[in-house]
Formats: sequence, structure tokens, C-alpha cells
Amino acid sequence: MPLQDHMQLISTDDHLIEHPLLWSERLPSKYVERGPRIIEKVMNEGNPPAQVWQWEDRIYPYIGLNAVAGKKPEEFGAEPVRYDDMLPGCYDPAARIADMDIDGVQAALCFPSFPRFAGTVFLQGEDKDLALLCVQAWNDYVLDVWCPTAPDRYIPMTIMPLWDPELCIAEIERTVGRGSRAISFPENPVPLGLPSFHTDHWDRFFSACEEYEQVLCTHFGTSGKPPITAPEAPMAVMIALFGCNSMYATADLLFSPVFHRHPRLKFALSEGGVGWVPYMLERIDETWERHRFYQNVNQTVRPSELFRAHIYGCFISDQHGIDNRHKIGIDNITWECDYPHSDSNWPNSRKVVAEQMANVPDEDVHKIVELNARTLFRFERTA
Amino acid sequence: MPLQDHMQLISTDDHLIEHPLLWSERLPSKYVERGPRIIEKVMNEGNPPAQVWQWEDRIYPYIGLNAVAGKKPEEFGAEPVRYDDMLPGCYDPAARIADMDIDGVQAALCFPSFPRFAGTVFLQGEDKDLALLCVQAWNDYVLDVWCPTAPDRYIPMTIMPLWDPELCIAEIERTVGRGSRAISFPENPVPLGLPSFHTDHWDRFFSACEEYEQVLCTHFGTSGKPPITAPEAPMAVMIALFGCNSMYATADLLFSPVFHRHPRLKFALSEGGVGWVPYMLERIDETWERHRFYQNVNQTVRPSELFRAHIYGCFISDQHGIDNRHKIGIDNITWECDYPHSDSNWPNSRKVVAEQMANVPDEDVHKIVELNARTLFRFERTA
Repeated sequence: MPLQDHMQLISTDDHLIEHPLLWSERLPSKYVERGPRIIEKVMNEGNPPAQVWQWEDRIYPYIGLNAVAGKKPEEFGAEPVRYDDMLPGCYDPAARIADMDIDGVQAALCFPSFPRFAGTVFLQGEDKDLALLCVQAWNDYVLDVWCPTAPDRYIPMTIMPLWDPELCIAEIERTVGRGSRAISFPENPVPLGLPSFHTDHWDRFFSACEEYEQVLCTHFGTSGKPPITAPEAPMAVMIALFGCNSMYATADLLFSPVFHRHPRLKFALSEGGVGWVPYMLERIDETWERHRFYQNVNQTVRPSELFRAHIYGCFISDQHGIDNRHKIGIDNITWECDYPHSDSNWPNSRKVVAEQMANVPDEDVHKIVELNARTLFRFERTA
Repeated sequence: MPLQDHMQLISTDDHLIEHPLLWSERLPSKYVERGPRIIEKVMNEGNPPAQVWQWEDRIYPYIGLNAVAGKKPEEFGAEPVRYDDMLPGCYDPAARIADMDIDGVQAALCFPSFPRFAGTVFLQGEDKDLALLCVQAWNDYVLDVWCPTAPDRYIPMTIMPLWDPELCIAEIERTVGRGSRAISFPENPVPLGLPSFHTDHWDRFFSACEEYEQVLCTHFGTSGKPPITAPEAPMAVMIALFGCNSMYATADLLFSPVFHRHPRLKFALSEGGVGWVPYMLERIDETWERHRFYQNVNQTVRPSELFRAHIYGCFISDQHGIDNRHKIGIDNITWECDYPHSDSNWPNSRKVVAEQMANVPDEDVHKIVELNARTLFRFERTA
């Protein structure tokens, strides 16, 4: 019995599609016309109109990037262009619970879609007052509507006004009393035009994350730098290489001052897989042993020790990672469903997990699928 | 006896530093003043002059990037700025053999230094006639001077005039009779401004490589796109992430038409490690299973099958890779010394190999350290 019935699946990486009126219903009336709203627009001559987001003067063509739950792989490819093309579970929190029940998933941490996985779209705002209100509206929707639909089923996560760390701190303080456990944060701020993990720019913000016990979830791609090799390369190349973004984030963080200055800070690498961790930790430690003397890196703590204390990975299916779980750190691995994206095994998540865990002792299975996530996100079992 | 005395170490990734007169002695007299030559130049005010390469009007400040053999890790950091700062084994093929003897290494494949690992510096030439002569001079030096110093100790490898595939074919035909077994080629041509593996641009060249049995060696970094995360990031981040470049190349090639069009073509990933291969092949296969239907990729051959038939990895030290050698492919792994770079274990290569192979059966050890390289590069044992 590798995955016993009493073990609950906690997904640390799912995605919600924003309700069409999320911003219109929350922004002050003077901003409604300039804030994000759904319009009908013919995107390809001869096709029926699509539903797209408009914000300020910009059009964002995909309402639900890769929201393909319920389709067969043979049908993948075309992004949904209307809410009617999607399962209601994509954008309706009660319908989502029903879909989670079908899948045997107890609880989920849901990333944004239109704002991008770490809310980085709001860096594009011309009117930064409006952009701040947009960030707050997303957080209010998640904390007041989405998560309260089923408080024992949704782990609250917020996004930040990333252009100003002081505003970020204020936003944590505005929201933390309503249950936020995590913040979606870029895997690397540099390609977004923001200061790196090697500066002191984020120090006060990171201290606030420690104080309020907010886990920083860094979803692959949140740097805005996807692993693209060539203009003609099929998208499969990029999909296969997602994990490299998490490897970059891991090496970047472990050789930075971040964890030395913030001993209680936690990072969760979202959708990066875990099977690469044993190789990468060995490589990082060896680099540290051989190259630290002439470089501005901590001279006393091995990077793999920092990893075990601060960084958590997750996987959808990853046999090599499961087989090498003790080289990764049995307490550092969580599971993800990735609903409604095309890498998800919905509605067969429990079946796939059970197959991949066939040779794993109960205790380890329970940690990976449920207990590690509950501890990391302070999300206690209620029944 | 994990590494028995009769097993010879063949290094599939070492580096030679070019002799100061390599080009001056080989270029037609009208080109000598415009071709690469060593000059004395004060690079930092107050320091004694350095020896630097000048070619056309450009200065290349490092004569032997990272040529630190013989120094302790505590002394790493400063690049050598004069030939006197280096062990003669860096640039003298007879002295190199003596250093290989100290290290217990039988044979080596040596990459260029000033021309960069795949000769890509010659893409910068304003005068392409001169650039072609520079490529040919490097190949002539390697085939007529360096390798003949000890034909059973050096595996001949050439570089190509990459700006023109037809010139590449002509260069193969000019050199192959003198023993070339391999060609140093970019891990990804795109960042260099050249067409990708997904075009038909390289097809005639790849066919020539098949016909003349030239292995394409793709050293990490030859795309000109090192894994840099931030301007302030210590170099350790980049060093730790070298393998990501080889992962990019692997996914890029396996989802390209290259191996379907060229069933006898072989790629060797140089200095990328191998411990990541099990994770990445699982991920690539799963991406293919789930995402191939709507993409321009081969629909019938699993990418991991292509890997085993076409791609070879190498490692300096990589315990996770060795422990998972059968998931990688026992015939797809070779060993490298990396002399004279800072990741090399010289002069203790045999000791480190023996330690890492302590639990590996003789047959597997022999394949990894010697036999696979001999087969791949058609480099038969003579005694």
C-alpha cells in the first residue's frame, strides 16, 4: 500500500484562472475602465471573437494560458480563448473543489494566471497607483473569495507590488491577518529589471517574510526568461527544460547572502521537478569546496546544508527524484498536481502517485504527498 | 580493485594553450601583422605588462583562460597573464605528455583556448579570408605538431570555419586524411548568430561528419551563452551551472530533426557532467509522450533511444552520475581530466577516479575510463 487512503494529497502548485470581474468588482470606479477587464476581440481574421484581457492600453491574448484540464494530449496545443472553452474548475472555486475530489486531492496552492505566476505583469503598469490596487484586488479575491470557499482545501498565497520592497512589506501586513501562508516571488528578479539576490535590496522584505512566516514560492518562468534554444525549436524543448530555471534559482540563492542573513526564510521551487537535485547539490558543493577562496561567498557553510534548511522542491511525476529522495532530503520534497495545465495527471493524480511510489515506505510517502507541505505552509489538518 | 593498473585513462576534455607563434609561423607573410600574435601590453595601470593576443584591431586579454594546473584552490582566481605563469605542459606538447604521465593519463582530446572551445572567435573576423587561414593554421598545428608529438597519446580534433558550412566540409576534406577524429562544434549555434539545429542549414555538413566519422564535441559555453544569473553573482554560480548548457543542448538536439536525418552522427557533450542525465531523459521522454501530438517533432522514436545511440557525456568527478551509470547508458559515459583548468584533479586524477569508482565492477570502470572513448573516437590501443 504505497499510497494509503488516509494520506491526503496536498498540491503545492496549481493554477487559478481569474474571474472576468475580479478587478472590475474591486477597483475604485475611476479605475475600472483602465484596470484589467475582459473584452471580446477578433484575434485572427475569420475566427470568432476571443475573450482577452485589456489593461490600460495593452491586450493580453490568453485568458487561461495552458488551461487544458479535461482534454486528452492529442487535443493539446490550442489555448482556450473563451471561458466556455474551459472546465468551470479553472475559474470557479467551488467547481474546483469538485474537480479536486474527482482527483483525490485534498488541498491546493493556486498561482495566478493573467498576472503571471508571480504577479510580474503588474511591473508593466504605467500608473503604479492602479498597479498597486490591481495587486491588492488579486490578493483580496484569493483571501476573501477563493480560499474561504473551502478553508481546509486552499492554502492562501499572495502576490506583491514587486517594484517597491516597502510596498511589499505593507502588503504583507495588510494581508497576513487574513491567512496568507506564502508569497509568489520571481525565481530571479534580474531579467525583470529588479535587483538580484546578491544585493541588499530585498533584505527588509525578506525579514518581513521571516517575521510573518511567509514561504517564497518561485515558480519556473517567473524570471521572464524561459529556456528557449532557438526560434524554430518546438515548444517541447522549453517544456523539457523547465527544471533548469529551478537549478539556476538554487545555485543563485545558495551562493548569495540571502540565507546567511535570513536564517528562517524558506523558498519553494514550484514546477521545477526534483530529480536533478542530487546532481546539482553535489556539483554546487564541489564548486564551493574548490572555488570559494577567491570569491565573495560564505566560507564556512556548505551549500547543501543551506538547501536542506531553506529550499523545497515539488514534482508532478519524477521517478528518478522519488528513487533518490534521501539524497534530496526527505523533508524537502512536496507533490504538485498542476491543475489545469497540460503536465497535470488530473483526474488520475492518485493513481500516478501510487504507481511512482510503489516501492517507497509509507512514512516517506506520507511526508512527500502531505506532511511536508502541511509543515512548510503551516496548514494543519482539521479532520 | 576498482581502477586496475591495466586500465588506461582517456580524457575526452582537456585544453591546450596556443604557442605564441602558432599563427605567425603559418600565415602567409602579408597576413602576419593582422593575424593573431602575442604582444606585451599594460592591462592594469601600475602592473607589469601582460602578454595578450592581438588579432586585427582587437585585444584578447587572457592568453590561457583558467590555466591554473599546479596551483592550489587557495591560489585560484587570477588568470595567468604571461606564459611564464603557466606550467609548460599548458602549451608544450612534450611537457604535456610528462604531466599526463604524472597524472596517470594515457591520452587526451585537447580543445582550443584563444580561439575559444569551438573556434568561435573566428566568427569575429572582419577579413574572412584571414579568418579561414586562422582556422586552418590551428588545425595544421594540432595535426602536424601537437598530436604527432605522441600519436598514441593525443586524439586529433579540428575546428571549423563556422560561418559557411561548405567551407566546413572543405576543411574536413583537407584535414581528415591527417587523422582528425572529432570536430569542436557549438552546443547551440543560435546565440552566435548562426542557424539552429532545427533548420536544414547544417545538413550537408552533418552528412560529411557522418561520412568521415567525425564526432561533434560540444563543450559547455561554446554557444557564447554562459549561465549567468546576475551582474553581482559570484562566478561560483556560473561554474555550478555549466551542466545546464549541456542539458539545453541535449533537449535541443533530441527534439530536432538532426538524428533522424543523420543516423550515424555522434555528439559528445564536453565538461557538462552526467549526473543530470537520468532526470533529464525521464523528463524529455515524458514531454515527448504528452506533448508531441501538436508539435513538429518525430512521432515514433522515443528521445531517450536517440540519446543512447547518438550522445555521449563526460565527467571529471560525479558520484551521482557514476552511481546511476546504467540509467544514463553504460556505453555513453566517458571520463575527462580538464587539464589545465581549475576543475581538474591533476595530478591526482587516478586517485579521484579510483575513489569514485570504489563500488563499480571492473567491466563498467573500464568502459567509462577508457573503452567508450576509444570506440567513440576510433582511437585504438597500440600496446
